[in-house]
Amino acid sequence: MEIIIDGGTIVTISSKGIIKDGAIVIENGRITDIGKSHELKQKHPRYEKINAKGKVVIPGLINTHQHAAMSLLRGYADDFPLKQWLENWIWPLEKHMTGHDIYVGALLTAIESIMGGTTTVNTMYHYMNEYNEAKAFAKAGIRGIIGHVCFSWRKKEDIKALRTLAKNWHNKANGLIRTSVDPHASYTVDPEYMKKLRDLTTELNEEYGSPTKPIIWHMHVAETSDEIEKIRQTFKVSFEGGVVEYLDSLDVLGRDLIAAHCVTLTPKDIKILKEREVKVSHNPISNLKLASGISPVPSLMKAGVTVALGTDSPCSNNKADMFEVVKTTALLHKGVNQDPSLMPAEQVLRMATIEGARAMLWDHEIGSIAIGKDADLAIVDFKKPHLYPLHNEVSHLVYSAEASDVETVLIKGKIVMENREIKTIDIHQVLEMAEKTKESLLERLAKRSS
Amino acid sequence: MEIIIDGGTIVTISSKGIIKDGAIVIENGRITDIGKSHELKQKHPRYEKINAKGKVVIPGLINTHQHAAMSLLRGYADDFPLKQWLENWIWPLEKHMTGHDIYVGALLTAIESIMGGTTTVNTMYHYMNEYNEAKAFAKAGIRGIIGHVCFSWRKKEDIKALRTLAKNWHNKANGLIRTSVDPHASYTVDPEYMKKLRDLTTELNEEYGSPTKPIIWHMHVAETSDEIEKIRQTFKVSFEGGVVEYLDSLDVLGRDLIAAHCVTLTPKDIKILKEREVKVSHNPISNLKLASGISPVPSLMKAGVTVALGTDSPCSNNKADMFEVVKTTALLHKGVNQDPSLMPAEQVLRMATIEGARAMLWDHEIGSIAIGKDADLAIVDFKKPHLYPLHNEVSHLVYSAEASDVETVLIKGKIVMENREIKTIDIHQVLEMAEKTKESLLERLAKRSS
Repeated sequence: MEIIIDGGTIVTISSKGIIKDGAIVIENGRITDIGKSHELKQKHPRYEKINAKGKVVIPGLINTHQHAAMSLLRGYADDFPLKQWLENWIWPLEKHMTGHDIYVGALLTAIESIMGGTTTVNTMYHYMNEYNEAKAFAKAGIRGIIGHVCFSWRKKEDIKALRTLAKNWHNKANGLIRTSVDPHASYTVDPEYMKKLRDLTTELNEEYGSPTKPIIWHMHVAETSDEIEKIRQTFKVSFEGGVVEYLDSLDVLGRDLIAAHCVTLTPKDIKILKEREVKVSHNPISNLKLASGISPVPSLMKAGVTVALGTDSPCSNNKADMFEVVKTTALLHKGVNQDPSLMPAEQVLRMATIEGARAMLWDHEIGSIAIGKDADLAIVDFKKPHLYPLHNEVSHLVYSAEASDVETVLIKGKIVMENREIKTIDIHQVLEMAEKTKESLLERLAKRSS
Repeated sequence: MEIIIDGGTIVTISSKGIIKDGAIVIENGRITDIGKSHELKQKHPRYEKINAKGKVVIPGLINTHQHAAMSLLRGYADDFPLKQWLENWIWPLEKHMTGHDIYVGALLTAIESIMGGTTTVNTMYHYMNEYNEAKAFAKAGIRGIIGHVCFSWRKKEDIKALRTLAKNWHNKANGLIRTSVDPHASYTVDPEYMKKLRDLTTELNEEYGSPTKPIIWHMHVAETSDEIEKIRQTFKVSFEGGVVEYLDSLDVLGRDLIAAHCVTLTPKDIKILKEREVKVSHNPISNLKLASGISPVPSLMKAGVTVALGTDSPCSNNKADMFEVVKTTALLHKGVNQDPSLMPAEQVLRMATIEGARAMLWDHEIGSIAIGKDADLAIVDFKKPHLYPLHNEVSHLVYSAEASDVETVLIKGKIVMENREIKTIDIHQVLEMAEKTKESLLERLAKRSS
């Protein structure tokens, strides 16, 4: 299909900067031309036209840390101390989740993400065979990396799941779906298993991956302050230093790792993250809600580490809203460092787009509006009171725009939402399924407890 | 007009708690009955019905600190150090603002507020005669307290403005508009003038106010860490202690004062705030954006101080979105105090409703859904992906709902927005006016500078 998005202000997140009264030409899912409206629309008079007058076109936002299926538990338990929250609420209910539940939860998150201008999601959950997050993402038409989360207590099951996941889903759904290997964290995956997962990743990449379409790693790293103590106690190691330094001692760090959170880092940890080219996924809303601490993002960026953004799960956020994460990132580090010039708007918008693509090793195809890249785009309606008057598009995108201002979304050139209507799936059916699935999940929990 | 809001879940913010499948009866602007849908709709079959099935009805949100007219400067300058931001950007442009500009800016904020479920706004700005914030609020049909901000350098002008404001607007517009006396801050209003403003307030209350409809005070208090030093230098006083303690030494504190920000407080300051029954307006987004610091809200609440919420101006936020302020409040204090059980959802929702009403000395008429109170209500549409599934309405309102989920808003029983359509004014005209007014403001600035 050939499309021309015409008449909008294009925020390219590239050296082309901002193009007013611009146009984007899309052919076979890719951006083939970018320029001024009056030039491009004469060149392509018969292309399907999307009128973007008075609107702002941005690269689709990239969410680098999710557990998409957990939307079913949104608002189920909040405001509890972490241990109590996990052990008394989240884990007991999660135990009852079936593959179909996971599918429904991920579908709900996929739709919510698209409706908020997010076109790519990196999600970590339990992979199940028939129904799973990959199937849900493919159905919704959203781009994503689907991981299977690994724990020491289920090695055999994990390895089987990782093999099936890579085989069935890596580089599938017209290239929109990739897969990852997701050690849960340094304190739940023992040193031997961690190394074994590295070997397995190499093996899986040889069979199913390629240098430009790799199977990557996704892990929780240094989320809370007690991790190194847990590692010492659980694995009987006598390590002194930070969690990143510990992981480096196992020789498992690399440019293909998305390290979620990175809240409690030593200066040496930051140095290692840079040296090993590890990518950090910053999740400020989740870190605040769970009171994990505040990631030293300005220091990470100063050290030259790639920092991208994530929502984390709908239980610790409780949304899949990247606009909210963008604004919170811009605000939080100014506030806690008492410096209003930190994290300026443009920098944070880059973190939600091109830096996210870099983190996912996908920046040759997504993350900015550039000729040759896939057309993953969000068209934002600026005709709203909170976006008036207009002094500066980037300021408005970061500080004033909200998820619901996104009007139309394209992923790989396919219109997945138009005028806020999801085109890939019946949204009312998904909402109904989500409510029913939650009810049945709670019933199973009640039965088991009684 | 008689209305019945029927079939919704009513979050009363009163001892009645949450009423599922409930109804609210409104007669002549007041709530006259609350109960179960099946009972009330039989009793009042001929009342105009607003169908709230699948929706959640909450008291209109109360924004206790705004400078409504400043929406015209939204996104004009961000990410600068405070002094540079004010002196090089905000103040030079503000100097050119006319009464009509103020009217247009306030109109834009009034509309944005209503569209986000806010029904009452406490705003501080420069009062001008013909066109002003009061006129804009009355036009939009929003409830508010309109203040005139006072500085030592323009005493005569201030006193004239305060008299005219009280005379023309206190308890006007069907009782929706009240007025206030707004000393800018302790470092810009000298001790003598501060005391004089207290006397003037007493005088104005005798003439235009009443114990249940008072003219109140609204002031910036302890927003930044350098205030006490500024007081010492500017007014040549040798005071040791906090800003609140200093104000108390002038005998100007009282239960009618809304103290905005209260970021840098001493333990003694907190004690005095409680003793004098001063109300605190917490503005977390603005405090983070301007890097002012973080107000010790949990300590204030523990001491028994009434803490309400505010957005601050559209230049330091950059929205009039109370849902965002609610979520940020719930998150921020958990995060910086490393305690996820702090500021639970219900408590924060109270701060945005009944505590806001208390702060404005208006809680006998607004702030909760109760028989005898005015019908200031927001109906929130829960049929959205980010509000599915439903475990807990209050959790969703605080952590997941957003301004654009508000569907219908009533203020004193009048429908001011229905299905997201503003009924009191032509919104497109306001948006156009806002853009034109900004253009003309920038032109005047350019002319003056050239």
